[in-house]
Amino acid sequence: MNIILIGAGNLATNLGKALFNANHKILQVYSRTAESANSLAKILKSEPVTDFSKLRNDADIYILAVKDSVLEEVAEQVVKGREGRMFVHTAGSMPMSVIHADRAGVFYPMQTFSKYKEVDFTVIPCFVEVSYKPDLIMLKMLASTISDTIYELNSENRKYLHLSAVFCCNFVNHCYAMGAQLLKEHGNLPFSVMLPLIEETASKLHYLSPKEAQTGPAVRWDENVINKQMDLLSENPNMKQIYQLLSQSIHDDQL
Amino acid sequence: MNIILIGAGNLATNLGKALFNANHKILQVYSRTAESANSLAKILKSEPVTDFSKLRNDADIYILAVKDSVLEEVAEQVVKGREGRMFVHTAGSMPMSVIHADRAGVFYPMQTFSKYKEVDFTVIPCFVEVSYKPDLIMLKMLASTISDTIYELNSENRKYLHLSAVFCCNFVNHCYAMGAQLLKEHGNLPFSVMLPLIEETASKLHYLSPKEAQTGPAVRWDENVINKQMDLLSENPNMKQIYQLLSQSIHDDQL
Repeated sequence: MNIILIGAGNLATNLGKALFNANHKILQVYSRTAESANSLAKILKSEPVTDFSKLRNDADIYILAVKDSVLEEVAEQVVKGREGRMFVHTAGSMPMSVIHADRAGVFYPMQTFSKYKEVDFTVIPCFVEVSYKPDLIMLKMLASTISDTIYELNSENRKYLHLSAVFCCNFVNHCYAMGAQLLKEHGNLPFSVMLPLIEETASKLHYLSPKEAQTGPAVRWDENVINKQMDLLSENPNMKQIYQLLSQSIHDDQL
Repeated sequence: MNIILIGAGNLATNLGKALFNANHKILQVYSRTAESANSLAKILKSEPVTDFSKLRNDADIYILAVKDSVLEEVAEQVVKGREGRMFVHTAGSMPMSVIHADRAGVFYPMQTFSKYKEVDFTVIPCFVEVSYKPDLIMLKMLASTISDTIYELNSENRKYLHLSAVFCCNFVNHCYAMGAQLLKEHGNLPFSVMLPLIEETASKLHYLSPKEAQTGPAVRWDENVINKQMDLLSENPNMKQIYQLLSQSIHDDQL
C-alpha cells in the first residue's frame, strides 16, 4: 500500500520500519522538524515533509503517529483538502472521533516503544477500528502484513485496554524502578540480580492468572513481615504509602 | 552432601527437587502433616518424618524451608540435641539470628514459587550467609551445584533485597491483576493480549534501567490522559488511588 506517515517519534519510527520491511511504500514522512523528518525518511526511503501543504493527496492511508496532545489539531491539517482519503491514528487512549473525516480509523499497536530498542512487530497485538465499514478489511489486511494478532475494538473499550496497559506496563515498570532504588541504596547489588525473578513473574502468566500467581507477605497477610518492611521504608514516605496501599489491595483481592 | 529438608511447601519442594537432581542425598523430609511429608519424600527418595525427635543427627546440613512465622520455633526444635551441625534457613526477610546455633546460615534462593509450575533453579540467584566463617565455602559449593549465581549477603542487606523483590515481583504481579480486572470488565478481551507488552516491559531491563525505560502518560505528564483515566476508575476508589499515587511517583522520579 501507499502510505503517508505523520510523525517521527518512537512509535512512528518502529511502525514505519515494520511497514517498510513488509514492502509497503512510505510515500512521505511528516515531522515538525526537518531533522526528524529527514532522518526517518532516509531509513524508509521516503520523502521528508515539514509542511502540511506539501503532503500528497494520493496515499491509500495516512497514519497519524503523533503525541495525543496535538493529535486532533494535526488531524485537521492532514485531512484538509484530502477529504475522501483514509486517516487513522495510533493512540490507545484517544477516540476515533478526534479525526473529523468520513473515513477515519484507529490502528493501535499495543506495545512500549523506546528509542534504541527495536521491537518485533509480529508479536504486537494491534487493535483496529473504522468509521466507514468497508475500510475494515483493508485496515485488517494492512495490520496483518506486520502483526500476527489483530482485534477489532471500539473506542470505548480501547480506553480501558489502554488503561489496563498503563497498569501492566508503566506501573509495573515503576515498581521495577522502586526495587532498583532500594537495591542501589542497600548492599549495592546490581539490578540484574532481579531479572530472573522479574522474568519468572511475567512468565507465570502463561499458566496462571495474576491472582492465582500471587505470592509474598501481602497475600499471606504476614503482618510481621509487612510491618518490618514498612519500617525499612520510614525514610521514604512515598514508597511507604505505595507499599501500604498495594499490600492492602493484594490482601483485599483475595477476600 | 547429606541433607535433611525441613518443610514441604512450594519452596521446599522446588529446592528439594533441585538438590535431588544434583545428586545430593536427601536423608529425611520433615513436615507437620504425614501427607505432605510422604508425598515429597517419595519424589526425593527420602524418609518422611513428622516428629522432630525422629530427625537424624548425622546430616551435613539441615535446610529449614518453612513459613517465616514458625521459623524460629521450628529452628529451636531442629537444633536441639544436634548442636554441632549446620542449620540454614531459606527466608529472605528473616535474619540469620533466628537460628540459635553455632553454625547457623542462610540460603535464600530469590524466586517466586508456585505449585504446578516448575522453575529452572540454575538461573535463580542465591544469597548465602554463615555465622561460622569456615562453613562459607561448603555452603557456596552446595549452592553452586544447583545455581549459577551465588552472592554472599548479610542479613541487613538481605532485608532490603527481599523488600526490593516484593516491589519487583508481588507488586508487579498485583499491577497485572488490576490490568486483568479492567480487561475482564470492559470489552472482554483475553488477558493474553497483554503478554507481549508485559514481556517487552521486562525484557527492556536487559538494555535500559527501569527509569530510562519508562513510557506512558505519567512520565510525559499528559494531564489530559491522566485525568480521563482517573475518571474511568471512578467506580473503583482503590484502583483510582493507586493510579494517582503511582502516576505522581513516576512523575516525581523524573524531576
